[in-house]
Amino acid sequence: MTTQHLAVEAAREHRETHAAEILAEFVDLLSLPNVSRDADDVAATARHVTAMLESRGVEARTVQLGDAAPVVVGHLRREGARSTIGLYAHYDGQPIDQPGWQVAPFAPTLVTGVLGEGIERPLPEGGEEIDPDWRLYARSASDDKAPVQAICTALDALAAADLTPPANIVFLFEGEEEIGSPNLRTYLETLTEELAADAWLICDGPVHQTRRPQIVFGWRGISEIEITAYGPIRPLHSGHYGNWARNPNMQLAQLIASMKDADGNVTITGFYDDTADITEADIAAVAALPDNDEAMRAELGLAATEDDGAAHAMRMLMPSLNVRGFSGGGVGLEAANVIPTEATASLDIRLAPGNDPEGILDKVEAHIRSRGWHIVDEEPDLETRLAHPLVAKVRREASYAGARTRVDSPLGQALLGAAEIAAGEPVVAMPTLGGSVPVHHFIEVLGAAVAITPFANHDNNQHAANENIRLANLWYGVDLMAALLTMELEAGT
Amino acid sequence: MTTQHLAVEAAREHRETHAAEILAEFVDLLSLPNVSRDADDVAATARHVTAMLESRGVEARTVQLGDAAPVVVGHLRREGARSTIGLYAHYDGQPIDQPGWQVAPFAPTLVTGVLGEGIERPLPEGGEEIDPDWRLYARSASDDKAPVQAICTALDALAAADLTPPANIVFLFEGEEEIGSPNLRTYLETLTEELAADAWLICDGPVHQTRRPQIVFGWRGISEIEITAYGPIRPLHSGHYGNWARNPNMQLAQLIASMKDADGNVTITGFYDDTADITEADIAAVAALPDNDEAMRAELGLAATEDDGAAHAMRMLMPSLNVRGFSGGGVGLEAANVIPTEATASLDIRLAPGNDPEGILDKVEAHIRSRGWHIVDEEPDLETRLAHPLVAKVRREASYAGARTRVDSPLGQALLGAAEIAAGEPVVAMPTLGGSVPVHHFIEVLGAAVAITPFANHDNNQHAANENIRLANLWYGVDLMAALLTMELEAGT
Repeated sequence: MTTQHLAVEAAREHRETHAAEILAEFVDLLSLPNVSRDADDVAATARHVTAMLESRGVEARTVQLGDAAPVVVGHLRREGARSTIGLYAHYDGQPIDQPGWQVAPFAPTLVTGVLGEGIERPLPEGGEEIDPDWRLYARSASDDKAPVQAICTALDALAAADLTPPANIVFLFEGEEEIGSPNLRTYLETLTEELAADAWLICDGPVHQTRRPQIVFGWRGISEIEITAYGPIRPLHSGHYGNWARNPNMQLAQLIASMKDADGNVTITGFYDDTADITEADIAAVAALPDNDEAMRAELGLAATEDDGAAHAMRMLMPSLNVRGFSGGGVGLEAANVIPTEATASLDIRLAPGNDPEGILDKVEAHIRSRGWHIVDEEPDLETRLAHPLVAKVRREASYAGARTRVDSPLGQALLGAAEIAAGEPVVAMPTLGGSVPVHHFIEVLGAAVAITPFANHDNNQHAANENIRLANLWYGVDLMAALLTMELEAGT
Repeated sequence: MTTQHLAVEAAREHRETHAAEILAEFVDLLSLPNVSRDADDVAATARHVTAMLESRGVEARTVQLGDAAPVVVGHLRREGARSTIGLYAHYDGQPIDQPGWQVAPFAPTLVTGVLGEGIERPLPEGGEEIDPDWRLYARSASDDKAPVQAICTALDALAAADLTPPANIVFLFEGEEEIGSPNLRTYLETLTEELAADAWLICDGPVHQTRRPQIVFGWRGISEIEITAYGPIRPLHSGHYGNWARNPNMQLAQLIASMKDADGNVTITGFYDDTADITEADIAAVAALPDNDEAMRAELGLAATEDDGAAHAMRMLMPSLNVRGFSGGGVGLEAANVIPTEATASLDIRLAPGNDPEGILDKVEAHIRSRGWHIVDEEPDLETRLAHPLVAKVRREASYAGARTRVDSPLGQALLGAAEIAAGEPVVAMPTLGGSVPVHHFIEVLGAAVAITPFANHDNNQHAANENIRLANLWYGVDLMAALLTMELEAGT
């Protein structure tokens, strides 16, 4: 048996005999509030994560530059190692303001299945039978504290079996991923030497929607833009002024509506330009993927999907425009008969390889202007409002570009092999992830090869209410980390 | 001098010598929470208002039918009176959830001018100088507790001057106006005999935007419709599913956008049909109004208004469609990168005379269907979602129709005369109010002539945050009520 096989076997045995302890430790980690913008919470989580690594003999520390959220850096150095493998995760989480939370986001709740179907139950005692279909509900249960726990548990398993990683291992856990990793590049530039690695593995994201494990070789970038339309300077009685004063909800709806056609394709001039060509190889890889589209539609209650039902995996190779929020005035019991003073739409744009994060926002702004709007970057004063019939405040944030790595590279083959050992079956080779991960900095600053090694369940509600992880996925994550920690790479892979 | 002249003189003297007491009593009234749907608050307010009338010798009582909010009914009967005059107001208020409140809605705040320009100050002591430009801030300060106070103060003034109304007076104060007066008709039908009057005067709404007093002879009706568009059954990560799963914000924006053209005219088929013809007389009345449009645009920060800047008063003669609220997902710091599960738009439609409250909603629904939507009246189940690419839940409420009364009727002339005595100058004869008041029931059930006798300042923020009344308007209201309470009408006016 190879070291990787032994490592996965050790991981399996360890997590089966220590499941209750592992869950208890994970619940401690998940109990720490970690919304990205809450600096004190994020710092406390970083300290906790650092201590978790240290207790496994990792040479770990918390590094903080200025006002940036800290990163956790850790090393397992091996004399004479031929290669270095980096493992990245992020310990911060999305906001928790979404409606629909049925559990407290930071009071982890174990449920014997999906919330609403299964029942809540206490954490198991040592030795108690644990169903892998149980789920643990909490913010970041999947995205992205799960890899932190899986790595620590895998290290415990290796130690128990007296196995050591053949390569040097370097860990980097970030605290600002959910707000676009504004300081990751600075951290990489500052710590370039100690973060040098042959490959950086991004431990984030879900397995394939069919629940089959996967290795992901590409990802989309992301830009964000928020548009606020202005109406009268004070709310106006809709009877006394309706039909005369313009309504910012209607004007913004007309602007937003003009950005896509009825079939979901973006109509902004040049939006799809610069997108990396979809090659024959991409098409072949997509064709080899499990076809799950119809099942996803049925599960999600979607009678139709965009672009006349085009394949999900093909759509992920294109940039997207998503109206993540629209808010103006009140609805339901909060509805009041007024013309509101403003309305805001918040958009996230996922970028395919080739799309320029700033350039695509320029195109959106050009579209807004082409519809007769005057753009400002602060709330407009009276003079500005009186000079322009349509005034929009635009706040934009170009975060990072997308990229793709070759499946048939030595790294790609080593990863597919490791995941296959952990999974006990061939895994999916995904050309691109739909989501965005701040990966390009690793390529640009460190010159490392990069791929994504996800293990969360696809229905984990990440970024939404009732985020959770299915225990079967957590267990696979432990096995996968054991296999990755014992992987060897040729130098310069 | 006529009785009316004496009454207005008495009102003026009384309010000048008792201003501090009047404001203190008004503050007590405004301190009572009165949001229409809060039954206990509304009932307590009704009891308070009843006591206010009783203390003036009005034969007053609180009447409650079933679960409806109570009405306050009061009588001042005069032996041998030739006519009966009804005075209507409502003591309930709009919700207080609007953003932007700078004062507590039910802790009335006196400001030496407009909030933000003037300074907050304590209530005046007796004899202290009071600037008529001061404003009192509270929910319902204008809409519509002010008439209750003005009537009570006018009654005090008449009593102090030993004047009595020559006509019978009947008061009706309602507690559900801000939710569309669902039970007003039932109250009128139940109390038909004791509410019989030659004319009902609706004490509600603002004076002309030029601050000139006005009598209003018409009003718009109102219908409301709320449309909820459905996306995936759970929030989806916008990266993993964006560009594939449809977004309800976008779909709803496209639907809402299709309801009006860029110039603000409604494009729903048949929307303007049935609207009462705008006659030469209407056009003449509008032409005689003070032209304040340009000043209003300048004050409100509007570079342009709908229908290519058409006259405000002409636009009020047409039905309107207002997107009072639009909400889906989150914006600003609440923005999360998800495709939300639903988006809701809340619309109020103001009706001109002739528009059918139900019929116009049928036209909106027909428009929604014509755009490919399937309409349901409850949250759709999975089967319904899978059967229809576009599913909308529609909640509709047809409240009441609009109507208009002749300016040149005896009632019209008597009212213009009374208001002129109170104002000390000719007043504006407004063919129609933009707002909606539940007036048609008085016409249909009681067969009464009806007109509106407003006195609030036009910039009172009614239905919005920081509602207020300018003291000059409150004082004019007292004088106006004194003139109306001493008006005589020919029977059958």
